[in-house]
Amino acid sequence: MRNYKLTIAYDGSRYRGWQRQPDTDLTIQGILETCISDVIGYPVLIAGAGRTDGGVHAKGQVATVLVSGKLDEQNFRDAINSRLPEDIRILRAELVKNGFHSRVSAVAKQYVYTIDTREKADVFSRKYACHYPKSLNIEEMKRAAEALTGTHNFLSFTDKKELDSAVRTIYDITVTTREDKIRISYYGTGFLYHMVRILTGTLLEVGEGTRSADEIPSILAKEERSAAGFLAPAQGLCLQEVYYKEEKRK
Amino acid sequence: MRNYKLTIAYDGSRYRGWQRQPDTDLTIQGILETCISDVIGYPVLIAGAGRTDGGVHAKGQVATVLVSGKLDEQNFRDAINSRLPEDIRILRAELVKNGFHSRVSAVAKQYVYTIDTREKADVFSRKYACHYPKSLNIEEMKRAAEALTGTHNFLSFTDKKELDSAVRTIYDITVTTREDKIRISYYGTGFLYHMVRILTGTLLEVGEGTRSADEIPSILAKEERSAAGFLAPAQGLCLQEVYYKEEKRK
Repeated sequence: MRNYKLTIAYDGSRYRGWQRQPDTDLTIQGILETCISDVIGYPVLIAGAGRTDGGVHAKGQVATVLVSGKLDEQNFRDAINSRLPEDIRILRAELVKNGFHSRVSAVAKQYVYTIDTREKADVFSRKYACHYPKSLNIEEMKRAAEALTGTHNFLSFTDKKELDSAVRTIYDITVTTREDKIRISYYGTGFLYHMVRILTGTLLEVGEGTRSADEIPSILAKEERSAAGFLAPAQGLCLQEVYYKEEKRK
Repeated sequence: MRNYKLTIAYDGSRYRGWQRQPDTDLTIQGILETCISDVIGYPVLIAGAGRTDGGVHAKGQVATVLVSGKLDEQNFRDAINSRLPEDIRILRAELVKNGFHSRVSAVAKQYVYTIDTREKADVFSRKYACHYPKSLNIEEMKRAAEALTGTHNFLSFTDKKELDSAVRTIYDITVTTREDKIRISYYGTGFLYHMVRILTGTLLEVGEGTRSADEIPSILAKEERSAAGFLAPAQGLCLQEVYYKEEKRK
């Protein structure tokens, strides 16, 4: 068997998320499996690095797939692309070692959340940003981001109840502004279910002034979902990149 | 009467173009007139600077509208925006002199055409670029662009037959590349019906090598549509900005 690493971009707007589901055809994984099976001629399953929610986008999702024989990387990519709808695209197909696994081998991930603070959302990015027409205190948001960085138990920041461990490490959260847009980049070992969206909702509440950055340590300490902020909408979120050993962050 | 200048952005994907038409509600002008009439309480007509084709986008279309009394600029803008669909947005509303007219007063316009040369179109810009998966000779395209710059009779570059004059001045055409995208910016006094799209089609044929940049003078001299290249698709085109006296180009 040969193991291929696929790097994938998608506009998640019309999908129910990454993960295959029995009751809908509108999942990224499901569509990819159908198209790849069609290319190679037998049924195949793929493993994704991150299970993005419905409506979440990706510029660098990674999946691995085992196939029976060696394929030309570029031909394989092009053959899948020609079968995929226009909102999903394979950026690269690469032959990798058999031990390599998109999720298990990943050492870090970067997610980017985009907020549009205009009175009316920008027409060209309206599907790729959360429209939040308020005046936000960016410096206070940066202070809160700083307090969230590091290794913590993030149980307050997930909607998943049963977990072996909610301890994760966030290496870096950067808050940058450009015109009327705010971009929050999260870089860390891994993220729990809904974690990036709840972190973002909490940062937005800090920016609005309904919470203070000083509250972050106590929100973390409470280890309960109700302590943190709202779940920011899916459409502002994008899985930017998945990092593996010997791959440096750009 | 007070005269207001409106600067407008729109995603033209689902529209039949700028100009109001009797048989469809899907025109930018028609929708704007309906929404503005609704805000001020009586029927109103607006005058646009450029009649963009169906599918063409705008980041800086300009229209003027005469209303009976003075309005607060920001409130006027916000009231129209709240009635407009999410793919049309007023960026600014400004009270201007009564003699000012969006089209007549304009001294120059900038259009930008975007080409995506990837084997499969980028999922996030697929509606805002022309997908043209070919290897293009950029230097040759730049040479052809240089030859098109200046004051010429552009009769070969329009689909409109009856014209007082097809003489126009293009101050500048710049061809730039970034990753797999090519951006062609046209800056000139004004452009004929389909002119930017035919200029682009011609430049693409030069890039592919089916024409040479040296042919441009003879194409111009022929003064007939069949001498020039194909009509590039509408979706790659965007009316970037309209310039007026004492406004310098950014």
